[in-house]
Amino acid sequence: VAAPAAVNPPGVVGLAAAELHPSVNDPLLDSMNFLNEVMDRYPDAISFAPGAPDESFFVDIDVAAYLQRFSDYLCDVRGLDQAGIRRALFQYGPSQGLINDLVAEALRRDLQIPAQPQDVVITVGCQEALVLALRVLHRDGDVLAVVSPSYVGVTGAARLLDIPVVAVQDLGAGPDLEVLRSECARVRALGGRVRSLYVAPDFANPSGSRLDLSTRKALLDHAERLDLLVLEDSAYAFTAADDAPLPTLKALDTTSRVVHFGTFAKVAIPGARVGYVVADQWVRDGSGDVRRLAVDLATAKSMVTVNTSPIAQALIGGMLLTHGGSLATLGRAKADRYRENLRLLIAALRRHLGDPADRVDGIGWTEPTGGFFLRMRLPVPADEALLHRCASEFGVLWTPMQAFYIGGGGEREIRLSCSYLKPAQIDEGVRRLALFLADIDARD
Amino acid sequence: VAAPAAVNPPGVVGLAAAELHPSVNDPLLDSMNFLNEVMDRYPDAISFAPGAPDESFFVDIDVAAYLQRFSDYLCDVRGLDQAGIRRALFQYGPSQGLINDLVAEALRRDLQIPAQPQDVVITVGCQEALVLALRVLHRDGDVLAVVSPSYVGVTGAARLLDIPVVAVQDLGAGPDLEVLRSECARVRALGGRVRSLYVAPDFANPSGSRLDLSTRKALLDHAERLDLLVLEDSAYAFTAADDAPLPTLKALDTTSRVVHFGTFAKVAIPGARVGYVVADQWVRDGSGDVRRLAVDLATAKSMVTVNTSPIAQALIGGMLLTHGGSLATLGRAKADRYRENLRLLIAALRRHLGDPADRVDGIGWTEPTGGFFLRMRLPVPADEALLHRCASEFGVLWTPMQAFYIGGGGEREIRLSCSYLKPAQIDEGVRRLALFLADIDARD
Repeated sequence: VAAPAAVNPPGVVGLAAAELHPSVNDPLLDSMNFLNEVMDRYPDAISFAPGAPDESFFVDIDVAAYLQRFSDYLCDVRGLDQAGIRRALFQYGPSQGLINDLVAEALRRDLQIPAQPQDVVITVGCQEALVLALRVLHRDGDVLAVVSPSYVGVTGAARLLDIPVVAVQDLGAGPDLEVLRSECARVRALGGRVRSLYVAPDFANPSGSRLDLSTRKALLDHAERLDLLVLEDSAYAFTAADDAPLPTLKALDTTSRVVHFGTFAKVAIPGARVGYVVADQWVRDGSGDVRRLAVDLATAKSMVTVNTSPIAQALIGGMLLTHGGSLATLGRAKADRYRENLRLLIAALRRHLGDPADRVDGIGWTEPTGGFFLRMRLPVPADEALLHRCASEFGVLWTPMQAFYIGGGGEREIRLSCSYLKPAQIDEGVRRLALFLADIDARD
Repeated sequence: VAAPAAVNPPGVVGLAAAELHPSVNDPLLDSMNFLNEVMDRYPDAISFAPGAPDESFFVDIDVAAYLQRFSDYLCDVRGLDQAGIRRALFQYGPSQGLINDLVAEALRRDLQIPAQPQDVVITVGCQEALVLALRVLHRDGDVLAVVSPSYVGVTGAARLLDIPVVAVQDLGAGPDLEVLRSECARVRALGGRVRSLYVAPDFANPSGSRLDLSTRKALLDHAERLDLLVLEDSAYAFTAADDAPLPTLKALDTTSRVVHFGTFAKVAIPGARVGYVVADQWVRDGSGDVRRLAVDLATAKSMVTVNTSPIAQALIGGMLLTHGGSLATLGRAKADRYRENLRLLIAALRRHLGDPADRVDGIGWTEPTGGFFLRMRLPVPADEALLHRCASEFGVLWTPMQAFYIGGGGEREIRLSCSYLKPAQIDEGVRRLALFLADIDARD
């Protein structure tokens, strides 16, 4: 899509940006646009910036075969005839979803999440699921707590819905629970309440943090005492090594405090735009009737996108069925690839820059065991000018972390992503990064 | 998806419905649930209720062939190689869309709307486009004016976003412009402003109204004088007879007052969930830079669904290309079918009930020349009890209109839809409806 001409034609209505909703005027957007512009300007640079899935897995995608596999399932298991199958795929469908049974079964088997089909809403990616949950759960100024640095999807959704946000620092192992407690008290003292906490317990974007088991339990304990709902984003959980599994918060959740979010973008393909939310909470209305929170999320969905494309759902359903109905099986080869890329990235950093513990010059990095991202610390502010210089002089790109921090912080941090690169690119990229860092040192 | 058990398990958190966002507690939802329950309870009744597309057109849908057609286009016209095609279909993609050029060209050719690709955002159905436009255009209590009876999608989106709504009565030929003017004055006197007006000029759901050419021009004139944006929903415009075309508001719009919405649900298939919005307005920011409103809608979209499934877009793109890139060609056979169904419905009503102009008993109906719907007036309130009786005793279903009216009205009106029925069902359904009406008369 080309840029518009720079001149407003005479006689035509002009809108003032200041009169539009503030969510489209957020300064974060400028940072993201800047990053995109730099990437466009230096197409030959090696980019550790985008957290996009590895495209080599796309070669195996046979849309027609997966749709046929799901159609056979509709016939064999749900007893639909050909007209019924066509109706399921091509007509309007239920807002709650078409593949809820397959998703619920996979979550039970793979993640020990006791989800039933009626607890699940199938959404247009995880993003829509976040929008629906934030919308339905927050009213009248209810506050959302977010780990900082934070995923832009959740803060963006909050801005769009005018939901106030408080930050809970993540120093590398998940949200600081002391800060969570004090923020809740502070909001309460002002007459409000923190209604929910967003957290990604496994290899979060952008921090790469993973919560250990005791932190998970302590977080749930705090949620209970502070009367919070926990919004658990599990996008990167599938990349954990098989010999180091940790239960999701939802699997540990005995009192329905956790709303669980997932996406097929990473275990399957982004292009289907299929995600899901497990919302098994009970909602009681004024007349005493109860329903699942999932029903309310589906109601909200009917006002946002009506329903998730049943063709896209069928494609994902067919992919799941082809892999024995298992998310883990569907994602295994990808998880292995991403872990290997991360191992190569960390090995290259150590080869070129030594042991981060030995460095005394302000350079350092995290060494996560899964996910797409690690955080690196620079000795100088990682601002737009520095990124520009790194791209133009050294041919390597990364993401400044500052924009992910709520209320300041992260000025000297960058995010490195390796999900999308080939091994040779990772090595060459780190070599260039090391030259860049040496140049920073030399200028000091 | 089965209903949950009615008992809240002990020890499990319960949420009070009253603490959720009001949009999921709206009384309109009860009406819609009631209607769904009645349809489920009387599956053998002939239903004039749902406005769903005719499923006989689904037989010809060959997903793989359409995807191939679009892939060939990506190769031949955009010069992509196989890896590039896979990336376009399966990777994350631009929030603004993948098929903007095809949609813009079709709108130029078929509807004389001077759209450029950069003016268009491809959305998850028309519903998401409405959500995006309402969100971006309304801030700080800006009011939305809506024709009443109104499409539930637009009032639902407004509720979800806490946007206040005022009603502008549609007495059968579009919004009453006197009411529009007085409502704008009333809101202004209260210190607010009416920012936009939602209207479907061609065979609106649920009213079936069509604006004639002079009303279209007068509406644009009012929009200019009242400083409103007009949100034009063109979902049913394609059903107009070829010999009676009327220009869309957007085609008549010389000052960029109109934001134009469309959907492929009716001309192609609902299951792709692909719609679009044309937003060629210029937005000027604080530093004097200009951009298209479409850019802001795409920004908002990045926070709602990130992007519309490129696979779904490719399917629609392939369908368009297979029909010469023309919306009119793509929709022609369907438009003919829907007009024929409407002709049969009106003929059956006249055969069984006479000329509506001759009736003096409070029964009457509109006779639109396109769209999916007509309105019928009953001599008694068309409430839930009456629908129940009509379904159980006469085996025919319809939609009460009252729920579509904002702030009261429509108590004795029903909506009849014929998009989805076969000719024999239409005739038999009207026969049953006539028996039901005779029974009402007899009870009086």
